[in-house]
Amino acid sequence: MPRRPSISAERLWARLMALGEDGALPGNGVNRQALSSQEILAWRRLHAWGAETGLVPSTDAAGNFFLTLEGALPHLAPVLAGSHIDSQPTGGLFDGAFGTLAALEAVTAIAEAGTKPERSIVVVAWMNEEGSRFAPGMMGSDLFAGSRTLDEVMATRDADGMTVGEALRTVHDAFPDLEHKPLGFPIHTYIEPHIEQADLLERSGAVIGVVSGIQGKKTYEVTLSGHEAHAGTEPMERRRDALQAFARIAVRMQDAMAGDDVVKFTIGRVEVEPNAPSVVPAKVTFRIDLRHPDNATLDRFSARLEHIVADEAAPCRHQIRRLVDAPSNGFDAGLQLAIRTSAARHGYPALDLLSAAGHDARQMAALAPSAMIFIPCRGGISHHPDEWAEPEHVAAGATVLLDLLLELSGLSSNQGVA
Amino acid sequence: MPRRPSISAERLWARLMALGEDGALPGNGVNRQALSSQEILAWRRLHAWGAETGLVPSTDAAGNFFLTLEGALPHLAPVLAGSHIDSQPTGGLFDGAFGTLAALEAVTAIAEAGTKPERSIVVVAWMNEEGSRFAPGMMGSDLFAGSRTLDEVMATRDADGMTVGEALRTVHDAFPDLEHKPLGFPIHTYIEPHIEQADLLERSGAVIGVVSGIQGKKTYEVTLSGHEAHAGTEPMERRRDALQAFARIAVRMQDAMAGDDVVKFTIGRVEVEPNAPSVVPAKVTFRIDLRHPDNATLDRFSARLEHIVADEAAPCRHQIRRLVDAPSNGFDAGLQLAIRTSAARHGYPALDLLSAAGHDARQMAALAPSAMIFIPCRGGISHHPDEWAEPEHVAAGATVLLDLLLELSGLSSNQGVA
Repeated sequence: MPRRPSISAERLWARLMALGEDGALPGNGVNRQALSSQEILAWRRLHAWGAETGLVPSTDAAGNFFLTLEGALPHLAPVLAGSHIDSQPTGGLFDGAFGTLAALEAVTAIAEAGTKPERSIVVVAWMNEEGSRFAPGMMGSDLFAGSRTLDEVMATRDADGMTVGEALRTVHDAFPDLEHKPLGFPIHTYIEPHIEQADLLERSGAVIGVVSGIQGKKTYEVTLSGHEAHAGTEPMERRRDALQAFARIAVRMQDAMAGDDVVKFTIGRVEVEPNAPSVVPAKVTFRIDLRHPDNATLDRFSARLEHIVADEAAPCRHQIRRLVDAPSNGFDAGLQLAIRTSAARHGYPALDLLSAAGHDARQMAALAPSAMIFIPCRGGISHHPDEWAEPEHVAAGATVLLDLLLELSGLSSNQGVA
Repeated sequence: MPRRPSISAERLWARLMALGEDGALPGNGVNRQALSSQEILAWRRLHAWGAETGLVPSTDAAGNFFLTLEGALPHLAPVLAGSHIDSQPTGGLFDGAFGTLAALEAVTAIAEAGTKPERSIVVVAWMNEEGSRFAPGMMGSDLFAGSRTLDEVMATRDADGMTVGEALRTVHDAFPDLEHKPLGFPIHTYIEPHIEQADLLERSGAVIGVVSGIQGKKTYEVTLSGHEAHAGTEPMERRRDALQAFARIAVRMQDAMAGDDVVKFTIGRVEVEPNAPSVVPAKVTFRIDLRHPDNATLDRFSARLEHIVADEAAPCRHQIRRLVDAPSNGFDAGLQLAIRTSAARHGYPALDLLSAAGHDARQMAALAPSAMIFIPCRGGISHHPDEWAEPEHVAAGATVLLDLLLELSGLSSNQGVA
C-alpha cells in the first residue's frame, strides 16, 4: 500500500535558495524579470526538477510554464497550482517563487509516494506577473483567462523597445522540444500559495492566511506635455514646465487619499524628458497604482485622481491611459474552508484576510473555483531584496497545499496512511 | 597694400549648417554632447577649415580645442575668441557653434586679407560647456581658469559610468598629432559671441547685445532616501515614499519663487529608483538650477531651497550637494564700449543687457578683460531643436567680432583700407 505523501521541507527550502541564484543581485535579492535570460535559467531548473519525478513539461502561446503529474483519469480537467517565477527589478526570493516551488514540492511528494491521483495535477509558473519589464503585469494569467488578446499583449514593448512576442520567442527557442498546450485549457480548480506581502499574519501570530479575496486595483499612465526651454533664460511666467505640473498633481493626489485607512496609492514610475539639468522639462510620463478593497470607493478615488490631472495639468497638456481596471473579487468559500480545516489539523494558527496585492488567482477565479494560501513575510517587506519568509512557514504553506491537492485530485488526505 | 578684412556671411552660414550635421537629430536640432563621437566629427571639421588658411590646431589637458593665427610678435599674449561646440541632448544649431564659427570666420578673413596681426589670435571651442553628459558644465573654461582641479573633473562620470578622463582620451587619441598647449596659457583678452537664448533683443528690435554681465547661478544635486515597498500592501501611514517627498519639495520650492520677476528656478533632471510601477520609490535624485542677477537675492533664495529640502524630506533622509556656486559678474567696460561703437558704425541697433544664461566668458573674466556679443535668437527659444538665428544677425555678430579682433590684435579697423 502506498505511504501517505508528505512534503520535504529541506528540499523545498533548498530549491527556493537555488532558484534565487538565477538573477541574483549583489548582496541579496533577485532581478529576474519576465522573459529575461535569468528567467530562462529558472525555467531550466524547474524543467530539470520536474524530470526527476517524471513530470511532463509544457508551455502555451502566452509563455506560461507547466509541469504535469498525469492522473489516472486524463479526461478529467486537472487541478492547477502554482504562481510565478518572475520578479521585480529589485525583488526578493519568495514573491512568486514560493508558490510555484510549493506546488512542485507537493506534486513531487505525491509522485514519490507511489500514488496516482485521479485528476492530473499541473504546476504552473505564469508569464510576467510583476509587470515591471512589460506593463501591465498578470499577462500570462490574463491571456489564459481570455481577458486580453494575444496580439495586443505580444506587441507590448519594454524600455529597450523589445516586444513581449520577441522576448517570448527567445524563451521558446531555448526549449524547442516543449509541448505547447492550448491557451486556456479547462481546469478543475486553482490554488495559489504566496507570501502575504504585508504583516497581518506576523502581527497576529498566524502561520496560514485564508485569503477571502483580492482588493480592487486600477492603474494609469499619465503623460504631461509642456515645452522644453533654457533653464537660465526662460521667464518663470512663460514656462510650461511638465515636471512642476507633475509635482502639483502628485501632491494633490496624495492629499486626496488622506482619511482612508486602507487605500493604497503609489506613483512608482516617472520618466522626465529630456531630463537634463539645465533644461525646463518638456514631458513627464508617470504611472499611478491605486488599490482599495471596496469597489465603490475605488471608483470614487479613481475619478478623483482623473479630475486632479485635468485640473492641475495646465499650462501643460495631459493624457490619461487606463491600464488595469480590476475590481475586488472573492475566492471560493469551499476552498477557503478546506484551507482552514487543513491548517487546524496541523496546528497552524490561521487568519482570514483580504489580499492587498494583486495575484494571478484573480484571473483564475473567473475560470474555476480558486483560492490562495498565504504565509507570513517578515516585517511585511516585499518587492525588496530584504523580503524573507521563515523556513517553517514555507513548509507549513506547502503542507496545506498538499492536503488540498490530495483532496481535489481524488486522493483523500487520509489515503495512503497505513 | 593688404585690403581691409571682411567676413564672408555665406561661408559662415554654410559652416554653421555643416557643423549641424555632426550629431544631427531626425527632423532638426543636434545631439552633440561633450567628448562624444559626434563632437570628434565636429573637431575634424574645425581642424580641416583651419588648415585651409594655415591656422595652427592645438588642444590642452582639459580637452579644449584651439586654432591659432600666428601674430608678428609671438611673445605677446594672444587674443582669445570663441565659445563651445558641444550641445544639449536635444539642442539647436547655434548655441555655442555660432561663437566658435564666428571667431573662425573673423580670423579666416584676417588671414585671407594678407595682413598679419601683432598679437596672435586664438579661436577656442571649450570642452563641455553644457554639462548635460558630465555635470556640471563649463568644465574646459573652469580648468583653463584654474577654478577646478584636473583630477576632480577627470573623475566625473556620465550616466553610463564613463569618466571625463576616459572620454577625453578617445578624443585626444583621434588627433594624435595635435600640439598640447599648457593649461591656462596667458591671454590678453577674451571675446565670446553667442545667441541671446532669450528674446530681449528680438522684442526691442536690436541686432547686437552688449552684455554687461552674467547672472549668478547655483546648482544642487539633492538625494531623498526612503524605503522600497510593495505598492499594494504597504499601508500609507508607514510609507517612506521618496517620490512623494520629492513632489512636496518641488511644489514648495516653486511657490517660494513667487513674486520675483527675474529669478529662474528649474528642476530639470530627476532619477527615481527602482522606478517600477508597483513599487513605492526608495530613492529620488534630482538637480536644481537657480539663477538671479542679484547676488544677495540669489543667496537668499538658495538658503530658502536648502531649508525646504530639510523641512519636507521627512520621513525620508536627505542629502544636498552644491555643484555650482557662481556669483553674477560684470564684463570689461572698455570692451563693452568697443562693441557698442562697432555696432553703431555698421548701423546695427544695439542693446545693453545682462546674460541670463551662464557662459564660459564668466570664467575668462577672472583671467583677462572679457566681453560677450549677443545676437537675437527667434522667440528666445534655446536648448531645443527649434533654436534659430537669422543669417543677417549671424553675419552682424561676426562683423562686430572682427572689428574687435582687428583692434585688440594690433590691426586697427581702418588698416588695410585703400
